[in-house]
Amino acid sequence: MNEVLVVGSVAIDSVETPSGKADDALGGAATFGSVAASLFAPVHLVGVVGSDFPAEHIEFLRGRNIDLAGLQVVEGGDTFRWKGDYNTDLNQAVTHETHLGVFEHFEPVLPDHYRDANYVFLANINPTLQLKVLEQVRAPKLVVCDTMNLWINIAREHVIEVFKRVDIAVLNDGEAKMLTDLDNVIQAGRAIKALGPKHVIIKKGEHGALMFSDHEIFSAPSFPLDEVIDPTGAGDSFAGSMIGYLSKTDDLSAENLRKAVVYGSVVASTTVQDFSLKALKQLTPETVEERYAAVKAMSAF
Amino acid sequence: MNEVLVVGSVAIDSVETPSGKADDALGGAATFGSVAASLFAPVHLVGVVGSDFPAEHIEFLRGRNIDLAGLQVVEGGDTFRWKGDYNTDLNQAVTHETHLGVFEHFEPVLPDHYRDANYVFLANINPTLQLKVLEQVRAPKLVVCDTMNLWINIAREHVIEVFKRVDIAVLNDGEAKMLTDLDNVIQAGRAIKALGPKHVIIKKGEHGALMFSDHEIFSAPSFPLDEVIDPTGAGDSFAGSMIGYLSKTDDLSAENLRKAVVYGSVVASTTVQDFSLKALKQLTPETVEERYAAVKAMSAF
Repeated sequence: MNEVLVVGSVAIDSVETPSGKADDALGGAATFGSVAASLFAPVHLVGVVGSDFPAEHIEFLRGRNIDLAGLQVVEGGDTFRWKGDYNTDLNQAVTHETHLGVFEHFEPVLPDHYRDANYVFLANINPTLQLKVLEQVRAPKLVVCDTMNLWINIAREHVIEVFKRVDIAVLNDGEAKMLTDLDNVIQAGRAIKALGPKHVIIKKGEHGALMFSDHEIFSAPSFPLDEVIDPTGAGDSFAGSMIGYLSKTDDLSAENLRKAVVYGSVVASTTVQDFSLKALKQLTPETVEERYAAVKAMSAF
Repeated sequence: MNEVLVVGSVAIDSVETPSGKADDALGGAATFGSVAASLFAPVHLVGVVGSDFPAEHIEFLRGRNIDLAGLQVVEGGDTFRWKGDYNTDLNQAVTHETHLGVFEHFEPVLPDHYRDANYVFLANINPTLQLKVLEQVRAPKLVVCDTMNLWINIAREHVIEVFKRVDIAVLNDGEAKMLTDLDNVIQAGRAIKALGPKHVIIKKGEHGALMFSDHEIFSAPSFPLDEVIDPTGAGDSFAGSMIGYLSKTDDLSAENLRKAVVYGSVVASTTVQDFSLKALKQLTPETVEERYAAVKAMSAF
């Protein structure tokens, strides 16, 4: 079985949405990404927390077959904390507070047994750190990277540098338009593809996702939800489950990539049905398969 | 071959979009709907124009196998004129001027040979007039109706009265949310379905369409466009080609309804590629099939 290497933020989130709020809950791109990937394959996590990080979260992650040898715990340091709301728009978080804490001086160091990872997910994190991880892996079969509007704003050249070197770049539609200064998502997808990645996936939330490859576009449906409780972690869950599925199947054919995108969409649709990792934690491989089959039936013609 | 009966506005439009403008061009919901339907089946048109309506448009419609026996020409009257722009948002027209002209006192009267129509498309028009058409048809197999935000605002009860009596109600996502006061499109679709129509189709522009039926939702992809020139008539083309395809195939199975929705999406994607009916006029059944096959390939997994 191929392990998935996941690097990114591990955080404590306080989130408010029209459905309610969650205070000091488990969060972070690498957390959502790892737990989603662990539905399909073992995970090697790279990240950093402070000594304030609750032991219960460590236990939970270990219990999901997530190797924490690469999770630095800084004695006396504070875990990265994010506070925000989605009260005006479920597609766009408003940040209230960000405490970088131990993230400010984080240098990702891969334990030696991580360096042969075949499947690498560079979850949302400073692109300079994403590049440092790429320097440490030996010969991955597939590298997937995510980013966010913050890095496009303040470190655009580094984001592009990472995109040049990955197999799959994943963005949401707003980020894709921001990165390219293009209003049309098809034009934006093609422009990002031209930067270098083999595939570009643009996530459109409730409207599914588009994957741009060399000679084709794949349009993936979403699982219809009549309520979204908390969108936090949807994108991380999408990419994590996608690469988890690819790692498990070890098949990078165009056909299997399409399936992986739909698995990503299916797992992300679960994440948003509750705060923090509550719904994702409950998700079983059996329920994933049921929801995948439902999406397939729903979009066949 | 089953004819499609189409009732709705026939108009002269002046439109401005970020791509340019068209003055005094052929427009109207019944015009777009009829021409789209005529790609698949003969059409019976019901509408009204003034004596200012250019003869070239009459000739064009006749040349498309559209029966104009039900098109009233009011001597000395003015054709309905609409002027607007899509400069701030390609999904939402801003109306500058509306001259009802001969539409103000329009009473739809169906020539006797129209009254046996099996396939009826109530294109966007005052819902009271849509009801008057329903009273005149004898035993249609399928009635499709469209509406717009104006009627939901000023004649909500009549819109609902029409919806109760049709097989397929078609709205865009904004109209669906407005009619139901619900923010979630899945909730809105189900609520409209509960009003009475057998199927509800919510058009989402570039994001495709959703069809709500008794026990299932169908998620239809859209044809990806890297440029939208003029969205006018997209919804009318969607519904017109959908019912045209159903009339041609005379098959109302769930499977064939799904295909019809995709044909609607394919033809609508052509309409928006130029001003007025320019692109729709050029569209051939062969190109429709090519684009349908492309959408199918693009969304398979």
